[in-house]
Amino acid sequence: MQTPATPVMSAADVSAYLDEVFPQVKTNGDDIRVIEVTPGRALVRLQAGEKHLRPGGTVSGPTLFMLADVGAYAVILAHIGRVALAVTTNLNINFLKKPEPGPLDATATILKLGKRLVVTDIAIGDSGGDLVAHATATYSIPPRG
Amino acid sequence: MQTPATPVMSAADVSAYLDEVFPQVKTNGDDIRVIEVTPGRALVRLQAGEKHLRPGGTVSGPTLFMLADVGAYAVILAHIGRVALAVTTNLNINFLKKPEPGPLDATATILKLGKRLVVTDIAIGDSGGDLVAHATATYSIPPRG
Amino acid sequence: MQTPATPVMSAADVSAYLDEVFPQVKTNGDDIRVIEVTPGRALVRLQAGEKHLRPGGTVSGPTLFMLADVGAYAVILAHIGRVALAVTTNLNINFLKKPEPGPLDATATILKLGKRLVVTDIAIGDSGGDLVAHATATYSIPPRG
Amino acid sequence: MQTPATPVMSAADVSAYLDEVFPQVKTNGDDIRVIEVTPGRALVRLQAGEKHLRPGGTVSGPTLFMLADVGAYAVILAHIGRVALAVTTNLNINFLKKPEPGPLDATATILKLGKRLVVTDIAIGDSGGDLVAHATATYSIPPRG
Repeated sequence: MQTPATPVMSAADVSAYLDEVFPQVKTNGDDIRVIEVTPGRALVRLQAGEKHLRPGGTVSGPTLFMLADVGAYAVILAHIGRVALAVTTNLNINFLKKPEPGPLDATATILKLGKRLVVTDIAIGDSGGDLVAHATATYSIPPRG
Repeated sequence: MQTPATPVMSAADVSAYLDEVFPQVKTNGDDIRVIEVTPGRALVRLQAGEKHLRPGGTVSGPTLFMLADVGAYAVILAHIGRVALAVTTNLNINFLKKPEPGPLDATATILKLGKRLVVTDIAIGDSGGDLVAHATATYSIPPRG
Repeated sequence: MQTPATPVMSAADVSAYLDEVFPQVKTNGDDIRVIEVTPGRALVRLQAGEKHLRPGGTVSGPTLFMLADVGAYAVILAHIGRVALAVTTNLNINFLKKPEPGPLDATATILKLGKRLVVTDIAIGDSGGDLVAHATATYSIPPRG
Repeated sequence: MQTPATPVMSAADVSAYLDEVFPQVKTNGDDIRVIEVTPGRALVRLQAGEKHLRPGGTVSGPTLFMLADVGAYAVILAHIGRVALAVTTNLNINFLKKPEPGPLDATATILKLGKRLVVTDIAIGDSGGDLVAHATATYSIPPRG
């Protein structure tokens, strides 16, 4: 098996950093927290509330996209440290089930940690354990001194 | 060449319908309008403002995702009529350039109009005409009477 | 957690069926076998030889695509039975590492087993256990009696 | 509009280069030619024959993948010159219609020509002008002197 990547930031540190660089996530009323960081993986939880719903009362596509994207960013930060300039270059998402309001857990896993590109896999589950969306995201990493 | 699909709703009708079924788009302060519908195509414009920005002052990924998704939905509605239950099953997006606030135009084109699946291509450009993102989106269509 | 899907065909049955409906896989000199089927999952092995290589001696992109696609088809067959008409509608693949000739293992997992669409995740590893590619594939399933 | 990229190689030059670096394309009996190069675009034609077919007589998925991938590579070569080390990092393909044997035309367009990543769009049409597949592909470009 691959040598698992070693985290360099804790879940609390990543959460704090996200609050710092994405103050708007709070401004917009989102409630996202990094729950756990383990080698090669991060668990990010969104409390999906009124503002994240579509007509019919299910969580909107852009909300799931945002959660997948933040999950990917969190696992990358946790493993390469504070690189605010990492940017998403590609995100592919499959919507599997319409999720109801409540906690949604994104488990983001590093598939490849390259010098220039990091590829991640993100599975989003609801509180009943059903998968509601699955994404793969690629981030471009600026050259590191 | 393919026989182009024939629109069954005007740009104004699609805009009005989006307002009706997605009142939250307005609640959230988004300003999206369907500008034009032509055979196989719809042009949707977002006025990207303060609320759509990330740190650094560029338009956020979830905003571009939302614009691509609404663009796809608009072109589908325009060609098959009011089918509120059409749902996104897959969306793949490439981010090409960080866009600044201002108008962003999504040109959504139908690639395939099937009985069960509609596949669309969405190019998002800024006011200078540069591509800022490109997406393909698949919608699942409920069985039609 | 999701109730895991229950297989209805064994690995040997799926292999035999693939040989029957894809005789060309053998004609073209490919050596693909379904090794194992477990609930929600199938393991498919390709012996990557001379004919699958690109200049430089690494396994070609179309070969990895084919392996991902066959992996997805195998796990679907194993869980819904002989549905020759299932067709790929979308496949998204990330290339992570250039693989050398030798055995390549595709682990295909069902993410969603819907009535009309089946979404799968495929991880391809080399004999050293490194991930060489990762894909998600959607198949459209014909209406079942 | 974007300043269109300026080609630095002709269609004949790109074809000759592909033959040189991918001798296997010929070994495998494929017949692919670069027909035309224009600013930001390349047209690549495959004569899909017996060897490219699936059961039922339609062109196989791996063949369409390969055509999309070669199309992307051709348009990149045409615009940045002989960079054999450019590698595909991501390819997303939607299958729209089962194509019959005969000529298939891939029109590959550059969406972004970055220093490290090139993003392309590839539309594959049959001789009747129907779209049979649509792909987006990202290539990673080695640092240029």
